[in-house]
Amino acid sequence: MKKNLKLGLFGFGCVGQGLYHVLHETKGLKAEIKKICVKTKNKERPLDQSIFTFDKNEVLLDPEIDVVVELIDDPAAAFEIVKTSLQNGKAVVTANKRMLAENLEEIYQLQQKYGKPVLYEGSVCGSIPIIRNLEEYYDNDLIKSVEGIFNGSTNYILTKVIEERKSYVDALKQAQDLGFAESDPSLDVKAFDPKFKLTILIAHTFGVFVKPENIINFGIDRISSVDLKYAKDHGLGIKLVARAFKSGEKIYGLVAPQFIESTHPLASVRNEFNAVTVEGAFAEKQLFVGKGAGSYPTGSAVLSDISALTYDYRYEYKKLHQDNHLTFSNDATAEVVVSFSGPVKISIADFEKFKGGFQGNGQQNMQGIVELEKIREWSQQDGINVILAPGASIEPRTPVEKQALAFA
Amino acid sequence: MKKNLKLGLFGFGCVGQGLYHVLHETKGLKAEIKKICVKTKNKERPLDQSIFTFDKNEVLLDPEIDVVVELIDDPAAAFEIVKTSLQNGKAVVTANKRMLAENLEEIYQLQQKYGKPVLYEGSVCGSIPIIRNLEEYYDNDLIKSVEGIFNGSTNYILTKVIEERKSYVDALKQAQDLGFAESDPSLDVKAFDPKFKLTILIAHTFGVFVKPENIINFGIDRISSVDLKYAKDHGLGIKLVARAFKSGEKIYGLVAPQFIESTHPLASVRNEFNAVTVEGAFAEKQLFVGKGAGSYPTGSAVLSDISALTYDYRYEYKKLHQDNHLTFSNDATAEVVVSFSGPVKISIADFEKFKGGFQGNGQQNMQGIVELEKIREWSQQDGINVILAPGASIEPRTPVEKQALAFA
Repeated sequence: MKKNLKLGLFGFGCVGQGLYHVLHETKGLKAEIKKICVKTKNKERPLDQSIFTFDKNEVLLDPEIDVVVELIDDPAAAFEIVKTSLQNGKAVVTANKRMLAENLEEIYQLQQKYGKPVLYEGSVCGSIPIIRNLEEYYDNDLIKSVEGIFNGSTNYILTKVIEERKSYVDALKQAQDLGFAESDPSLDVKAFDPKFKLTILIAHTFGVFVKPENIINFGIDRISSVDLKYAKDHGLGIKLVARAFKSGEKIYGLVAPQFIESTHPLASVRNEFNAVTVEGAFAEKQLFVGKGAGSYPTGSAVLSDISALTYDYRYEYKKLHQDNHLTFSNDATAEVVVSFSGPVKISIADFEKFKGGFQGNGQQNMQGIVELEKIREWSQQDGINVILAPGASIEPRTPVEKQALAFA
Repeated sequence: MKKNLKLGLFGFGCVGQGLYHVLHETKGLKAEIKKICVKTKNKERPLDQSIFTFDKNEVLLDPEIDVVVELIDDPAAAFEIVKTSLQNGKAVVTANKRMLAENLEEIYQLQQKYGKPVLYEGSVCGSIPIIRNLEEYYDNDLIKSVEGIFNGSTNYILTKVIEERKSYVDALKQAQDLGFAESDPSLDVKAFDPKFKLTILIAHTFGVFVKPENIINFGIDRISSVDLKYAKDHGLGIKLVARAFKSGEKIYGLVAPQFIESTHPLASVRNEFNAVTVEGAFAEKQLFVGKGAGSYPTGSAVLSDISALTYDYRYEYKKLHQDNHLTFSNDATAEVVVSFSGPVKISIADFEKFKGGFQGNGQQNMQGIVELEKIREWSQQDGINVILAPGASIEPRTPVEKQALAFA
């Protein structure tokens, strides 16, 4: 039996406004917005003032409100809203990926403690229903990997830079003008945003909570002319790929740009679109493609979560309860193309296996196999860009191989 | 709380065997096969004989069996199994799309009457979780359309014929050798199989039960050299596209081959892969891609249904309960390329609007806009092939336009 839900909103930006609009267009959904808590006073708003409040307690302490929909930017304030809502017996819908990624284990425990659900489909890949599918549909499948393009803003930029030969600066500005970029573009272009999403998916795919800082991320903001030349010479594209997979009892993960051949399934995912590939033992590869940036795709996911609450849906975090001993590891290697210029010192000794290089116009690149930790090291030094080689995958180093290396 | 399920199987072909195998590999799933009812005696089988029976009542009347998994070919016998199982208080999992499409309204009513669910994710697009997503995730979204490639066998054949220049006969044989074709290939190549799937999706997308015979289907078995030349000359592919959409209070649907430009989202869906695009008012277009033929993708979907039954999942057919007055209609037009040879008489008068034609080597084609009923008429005459023109869509004819035509 469906419930009639009363909602309290925090934030009334694009997503909130779209949500308000669609709630009135949707016949099947029994939910109404009772109160909207906003920060800025004296701002023109398209609704009657009586629905707005500037006091969070008018939402959090209202016993009539069943569901708090949190749509603000600030992760710390958002986490407080989530905690207080659960303590006060309210369900929560949020799309705040950073807040979720940084606090996911605690949010899981708070849900157990207070018996109220937190749903967050809108936090990962916009309108693609990936969390729900991982929770519900793939819970019996032995999933090997999830990977894809998790950030619409950078995919838009890369499409313009690679396919339309725009400059990075112009492409970024265009993405911002279209409302695809987050309030702080560095979270996108330095690949923190897709890393937060990967963190969330790792919990729902493998039942492992990993802190975002443990996952290595490399952005797209250092792609140089020598990289673009490499792409052009080899007929390749560049995509910012987030991936995680299971090998033995370890989970490996990385977010980094990669040179992609035109036949790769992700090559045709352009502009603000996102894509997720789920590889199962039995279902094989499944690809989901949908818009990943903009207020409507996120609003659609938020709306689906609200709808799910009308029939008491909650994430069961089923893989957490399966008797596994999985842990996250960075003890692996990958083949990369490193480009740099000026006084940066990178030598063949940095590589596990060096494959070749190129030098010209004051810029260099070197290609070979490196440890993942080397990619992290380079991400913290200016002037170095890293792109995974075409076809490269993360290769776990087993203890046996390490032994062999120690005596080599 | 998860239940321990006891299963009774009907049929033990590839899907059943794969299912048996994976049930033993999956930690999280609490389900065991108690009995398997098979038809052929004296056949070598990979399990101990004690699990098999030739008497359907040993499954249907066993009070310990909670779930009947129906995996046989014969639609009439399958429907009897479904009915008797529900009457005896058992849930049912089936992948028999023909049986479902032909009896869906009655199966819906039987579920209401006996209070037990029938799940059938495996019946549509193999491993793609499309029914579950339409039921759960898109229930609040105003869906405009579903379309895609719903048949892996014909997509495999078309890929070989168009991209690898194989003959139709060779490509069909190859598909059969790989186990992609159904026991009766005419259901695939004449586009009945994707029509059954479209029938099922129309119920879950729009809440409308339509009889499969009301939907017009045109197959790929009459594609001629003049069609292949047309494709080559224009740089086009051919895909067998199933589609349904809402316009006003009407639902329109059609399954027919279409010339597809290389930039079309379905162009990159090759071989035995299936794809479904769902267009919502709010989520915009979502694309799902996965393997659509072979025992493993179907087995994966069957397994997910069994898993869902451990937590009492059932389809709610939510759109049926929304207050809509939608009905199915074929009163629409589409632009087609018709090819034919010999004594077949097609004239410009058959078209609502004639656009042009080509003649050579005893074969002809004509291009223009026709009524959907004309496509049905041609499907019943030998020697005529119909392919939707590139970019063509189904255009509903409003009563107003009809009025105008009557006086034209």
